Amino acid sequence: MSRPRLRDYGIAIGQLPPGPRNAITDVRGVRVGHATLIQGEGPLRPGEGPVRTGVTLILPHAGNLFREKVRAGVRTLNGFGKPCGLEELRELGVVETPIALTNTLNVFRVADALATHALAHNPEIGVSTSSVNPVVGECNDGYLNDIQGRHVGAAQVTAALEDALSGQAGLPVREGNVGAGTGTSCFGWKGGIGTASRRLPQEAGGWTVGALVQSNFGRPEQLVVDGLPVGRFLRPPGYRPQPEGGSIMVVLATDAPLTARQLGRLCVRAGAGIARTGSHFGHGSGDFVIAFSTAHRIRHWPQELTAPLPALAHEPRVLDALFAAVVEAVEEAILNSLFTAETMTGRDGHVRYALPVEPILERLRRPRW
Amino acid sequence: MSRPRLRDYGIAIGQLPPGPRNAITDVRGVRVGHATLIQGEGPLRPGEGPVRTGVTLILPHAGNLFREKVRAGVRTLNGFGKPCGLEELRELGVVETPIALTNTLNVFRVADALATHALAHNPEIGVSTSSVNPVVGECNDGYLNDIQGRHVGAAQVTAALEDALSGQAGLPVREGNVGAGTGTSCFGWKGGIGTASRRLPQEAGGWTVGALVQSNFGRPEQLVVDGLPVGRFLRPPGYRPQPEGGSIMVVLATDAPLTARQLGRLCVRAGAGIARTGSHFGHGSGDFVIAFSTAHRIRHWPQELTAPLPALAHEPRVLDALFAAVVEAVEEAILNSLFTAETMTGRDGHVRYALPVEPILERLRRPRW
Amino acid sequence: MSRPRLRDYGIAIGQLPPGPRNAITDVRGVRVGHATLIQGEGPLRPGEGPVRTGVTLILPHAGNLFREKVRAGVRTLNGFGKPCGLEELRELGVVETPIALTNTLNVFRVADALATHALAHNPEIGVSTSSVNPVVGECNDGYLNDIQGRHVGAAQVTAALEDALSGQAGLPVREGNVGAGTGTSCFGWKGGIGTASRRLPQEAGGWTVGALVQSNFGRPEQLVVDGLPVGRFLRPPGYRPQPEGGSIMVVLATDAPLTARQLGRLCVRAGAGIARTGSHFGHGSGDFVIAFSTAHRIRHWPQELTAPLPALAHEPRVLDALFAAVVEAVEEAILNSLFTAETMTGRDGHVRYALPVEPILERLRRPRW
Amino acid sequence: MSRPRLRDYGIAIGQLPPGPRNAITDVRGVRVGHATLIQGEGPLRPGEGPVRTGVTLILPHAGNLFREKVRAGVRTLNGFGKPCGLEELRELGVVETPIALTNTLNVFRVADALATHALAHNPEIGVSTSSVNPVVGECNDGYLNDIQGRHVGAAQVTAALEDALSGQAGLPVREGNVGAGTGTSCFGWKGGIGTASRRLPQEAGGWTVGALVQSNFGRPEQLVVDGLPVGRFLRPPGYRPQPEGGSIMVVLATDAPLTARQLGRLCVRAGAGIARTGSHFGHGSGDFVIAFSTAHRIRHWPQELTAPLPALAHEPRVLDALFAAVVEAVEEAILNSLFTAETMTGRDGHVRYALPVEPILERLRRPRW
Repeated sequence: MSRPRLRDYGIAIGQLPPGPRNAITDVRGVRVGHATLIQGEGPLRPGEGPVRTGVTLILPHAGNLFREKVRAGVRTLNGFGKPCGLEELRELGVVETPIALTNTLNVFRVADALATHALAHNPEIGVSTSSVNPVVGECNDGYLNDIQGRHVGAAQVTAALEDALSGQAGLPVREGNVGAGTGTSCFGWKGGIGTASRRLPQEAGGWTVGALVQSNFGRPEQLVVDGLPVGRFLRPPGYRPQPEGGSIMVVLATDAPLTARQLGRLCVRAGAGIARTGSHFGHGSGDFVIAFSTAHRIRHWPQELTAPLPALAHEPRVLDALFAAVVEAVEEAILNSLFTAETMTGRDGHVRYALPVEPILERLRRPRW
Repeated sequence: MSRPRLRDYGIAIGQLPPGPRNAITDVRGVRVGHATLIQGEGPLRPGEGPVRTGVTLILPHAGNLFREKVRAGVRTLNGFGKPCGLEELRELGVVETPIALTNTLNVFRVADALATHALAHNPEIGVSTSSVNPVVGECNDGYLNDIQGRHVGAAQVTAALEDALSGQAGLPVREGNVGAGTGTSCFGWKGGIGTASRRLPQEAGGWTVGALVQSNFGRPEQLVVDGLPVGRFLRPPGYRPQPEGGSIMVVLATDAPLTARQLGRLCVRAGAGIARTGSHFGHGSGDFVIAFSTAHRIRHWPQELTAPLPALAHEPRVLDALFAAVVEAVEEAILNSLFTAETMTGRDGHVRYALPVEPILERLRRPRW
Repeated sequence: MSRPRLRDYGIAIGQLPPGPRNAITDVRGVRVGHATLIQGEGPLRPGEGPVRTGVTLILPHAGNLFREKVRAGVRTLNGFGKPCGLEELRELGVVETPIALTNTLNVFRVADALATHALAHNPEIGVSTSSVNPVVGECNDGYLNDIQGRHVGAAQVTAALEDALSGQAGLPVREGNVGAGTGTSCFGWKGGIGTASRRLPQEAGGWTVGALVQSNFGRPEQLVVDGLPVGRFLRPPGYRPQPEGGSIMVVLATDAPLTARQLGRLCVRAGAGIARTGSHFGHGSGDFVIAFSTAHRIRHWPQELTAPLPALAHEPRVLDALFAAVVEAVEEAILNSLFTAETMTGRDGHVRYALPVEPILERLRRPRW
Repeated sequence: MSRPRLRDYGIAIGQLPPGPRNAITDVRGVRVGHATLIQGEGPLRPGEGPVRTGVTLILPHAGNLFREKVRAGVRTLNGFGKPCGLEELRELGVVETPIALTNTLNVFRVADALATHALAHNPEIGVSTSSVNPVVGECNDGYLNDIQGRHVGAAQVTAALEDALSGQAGLPVREGNVGAGTGTSCFGWKGGIGTASRRLPQEAGGWTVGALVQSNFGRPEQLVVDGLPVGRFLRPPGYRPQPEGGSIMVVLATDAPLTARQLGRLCVRAGAGIARTGSHFGHGSGDFVIAFSTAHRIRHWPQELTAPLPALAHEPRVLDALFAAVVEAVEEAILNSLFTAETMTGRDGHVRYALPVEPILERLRRPRW
């Protein structure tokens, strides 16, 4: 279901080195799970299919997230989207469930399933303590998928959780037509899930930044690959211009000890990574970024009033390195989603073609200077 | 299920006159519908009951809201809450579904039901046009209700819609233990749904402002009624201090021709109305305000590129009157929720008592000066 | 220049105890200095006088604030105002100069003077390190003062600094017609500088919250004193309704170890304190709140990459107490500004009368229940 | 003082056509004026020189801006900066003075001078009506300039105003080492003022978008010119890595009839234009965007309560074109600032070299595909 990644061809984005997996799972303890739904062919029968969708979960750690939350920040680049959970994330600066990605109309059923999961492990929720705040992002995969059918339910969320928790942390992340990326489109080509990571120099703390994207934005003529204006020359077969109705969800993870305010600043820089691939942050594109830090856990039931929090002492020395890491990782994660995704035929015979990488690679390998 | 309102006792909040119904439905075309669920008694059996909850819908007009949207604004006073739809409302400045209120854990199922309703009337959603953005607010009614059971489903949303659309616009609004207010608590007493309205002087445009609240915040000692520090003297039977885990949802409607920016400014003033009843905007209280204007409809499929928009020419003359109207209407709506709600016994024998109004009225009627 | 404070009459606002001075200087290390300008009488000659204005400085500590910054947050309740320095405060979460209050048109000259002061003590600014961010708030005192004259310059800022640094920390704060409050009006009466503080219970950490306000908002009919609707009964001599062109600046200080995000949440609650005195957050009123914590200093030139930051481990237990402290201290600080200010005659024979306290006290002393 | 622009070499950024001047002054009625200060040489004597700075004013129209305001929006991309006037712009959605750009420490003196200018033409300000809100942005030019000296005063602001008002509207804009760009640096090269514009297709309304930048951000290794990673290959002579202490101010103008909310959305897209030139939105870079529309004037003293406002009827058809225009215009304006600026020697013999354009042009002219 997946082709080689950008770096498999010897192409590197930016200056910083990636982590060992070049994935968000390079941030220690982070796990990713997918559930993928591909069923049926032919004309759209709303509620029945064809189905080309799924759900992807990002877990900051494998423990009980409600009881041991992680610090988080968020930025809305373009708010034309239906995510859940951002108000409370913004107010309290924490994430307390897995972060889920799915299709636009399915976001509520997935949030409900995350709540069910949290209730199962924390029966006190809503009874003797506050409620739980599921965080769910989404992209519109309706060009290929029977999006009205809302086929992702509790079973798929459970399967994705099991997928995330099976095996060890730090495993590679499947990309392309998988999970929430199964039915998405990017620059008129097949998009999907992509990931990448960057390692900071030791003198800047040696921390890791990982990015995972669900790519579903842009028009073909806009695509830029590592500065190469691919979109001016390469168009999908039979492409007819369409208004952009896409979106991109970006999830950032780091082990740097950042406050919620600082994590929010990281999110801003994801916008630069997205812009470098050619995006205009189109009107119809819901572009959201969520960042979390694994450096510290916030206990729901702490024993002390105060606790020392590991924190950056001086921002400039480290933050510019973190910002560069975010820009590079997001740009590469988007390109990985395009490079790895395979051609997909969906409802009504709609086809999203895999980005043809050879003509691009050939130009990228030419001397630039 | 409802006792007299504050004004039935001859008590008026503020200076401005109310509309004919003293309700959000005084704003021409606005409709409200409830579905109320009261089932079972005794100990909590999560998933089964006892059930003390419901859903309340506010419709800016009776037409197809997806095709004819209204301008809207929003403010988060305290973001410890799980509302849906605020990101897109903030970005685009419109509402395109009924605004729903329900319990915290039920917010996703209600949003899903609103999406189902929108799909039924607009089969192009997600297929040939963008998706739909359900707007849902919530309060935690878990003290009385089996909140984990998430008993409000598509059937209740449909019932509330039918309730809203039956009869004419401009009807009185049922208050107290009804719809989304069935199981809520306010200042340790029984809260619920409340509403009020204000009419501006003709020289300030003669427009109407209506407010509807789902009240679920505050501790007994904080309650202030029209300046009277009731909470210092009156406590619910058997009251034991509890951390505040409440919330308040406020919906404002007006026929004044306001932009989304101006509607957002109206929302800020709802905070003053809430504060006058004694709230501290508690840490655990999700306090959100949504405002919409019925003065203009934004067509999903317009015929022209531009259209003249009715707008306030000069803000100061009118906005201060609108702001005062918001403060007064919100304060009175909250008090109406308390005055009308009846004593309710819920899960595990938990009781929320009706606010005893006689001792309060007796003091309010004394000369203040 | 100052009459007794509210508590001198035996009236207490709220439930929490004040600190020893009932002032923002109860937060250890905080200092306040004023420079007051009262010159000339008779008709307004713009640029010459009469002058009824000044500047007030709040110092988080007596050291070099540029080199040892404090964490800070900010909220704009109504942005119709001209403060300086809020963008960077919001982005970086620190304050690195004294916080200055002055009149609206003088804000830039005061900011320039703060920059001059910072340059004098940190000659590297702008040469070998980043620039400095002066934080200045303002209210419009043009009803009494020759505001166009911008009479507050570097000499007054220096004098206020010397005033703040003379003597020990923890001294009482002069209130009423002093510093930035010299020419301000509140609810149609003479307003000015006011302050108050609250001490948290030991089980909530025992921390102190202090508030200082420059009060300049509201119309006479709105005034509420401890729940008593004073404005319905008491009007200034010869009062004629005027559009509100006021403002309020609130500065909050605490020794609780809060992050910038949490300090921003404190600021929101100042709005409840303001609302309790009768404010609608009028259209023309620039209402801003700045909060800082003295618990930790952020060094401009740190020696380590990371440092443990004292932080609240669990928000609910403490934050609700802090929020209540903010609401009470802000309400009392505003009332102190009204109770202490003396009648002032300014330009063109304009008079702002001292609030007559006796009729109010008489009613406040009556049994409420 | 200025070299050819990018387009003079036959290089075009993006797909949309520019206006006749390829400048912000292509938006009808918009005027730009500069005052440039270049004095002294040799070692820095703070307060004396050498001086390499100035001020640039952008006038939405040539009339009395306080009495006839224009709608405006703003976004803070990275708030490490000291602009004035953004709070009120955000709240009220208008601009009522020229928009000024200058150096960081001079921002307050320039704001004060704008106030002086507004008072001279509107003697009622602060006396019988509200105050005036000067809008000033800034960049740190301290590498070349005696920034502590704050050499831009009222005389320079007056001179820039006269420059803007001399001649007709629609003239070309001087770029490079002029006005607020006199002493700025960009990607380690000499930056300065740059401008560009785009014209929308008739079917998208035919409106114009103009951008003007004061460029002062980035490190040499980051520079990208039309997708070409110039910074990997081209470094300034004697360059030693320095922490980024820059900034970019972007001003956008359009004649499209946008609300303040929509103008804010335009601002977001400026970030994509900046990112395409290689920016990471560095920690120390204050990156702000202000957008205004000339389509409608908001009168300070209107005669009616309401007025029809020209407005976009349907966002998607037009907004994506406007967004693309912003991205392209901002990218080209930044590159114009780099291409036109000449080598400048400043304080302490510091040199910022003009970007050598020939090696870049040579690569840009090679076939890309």
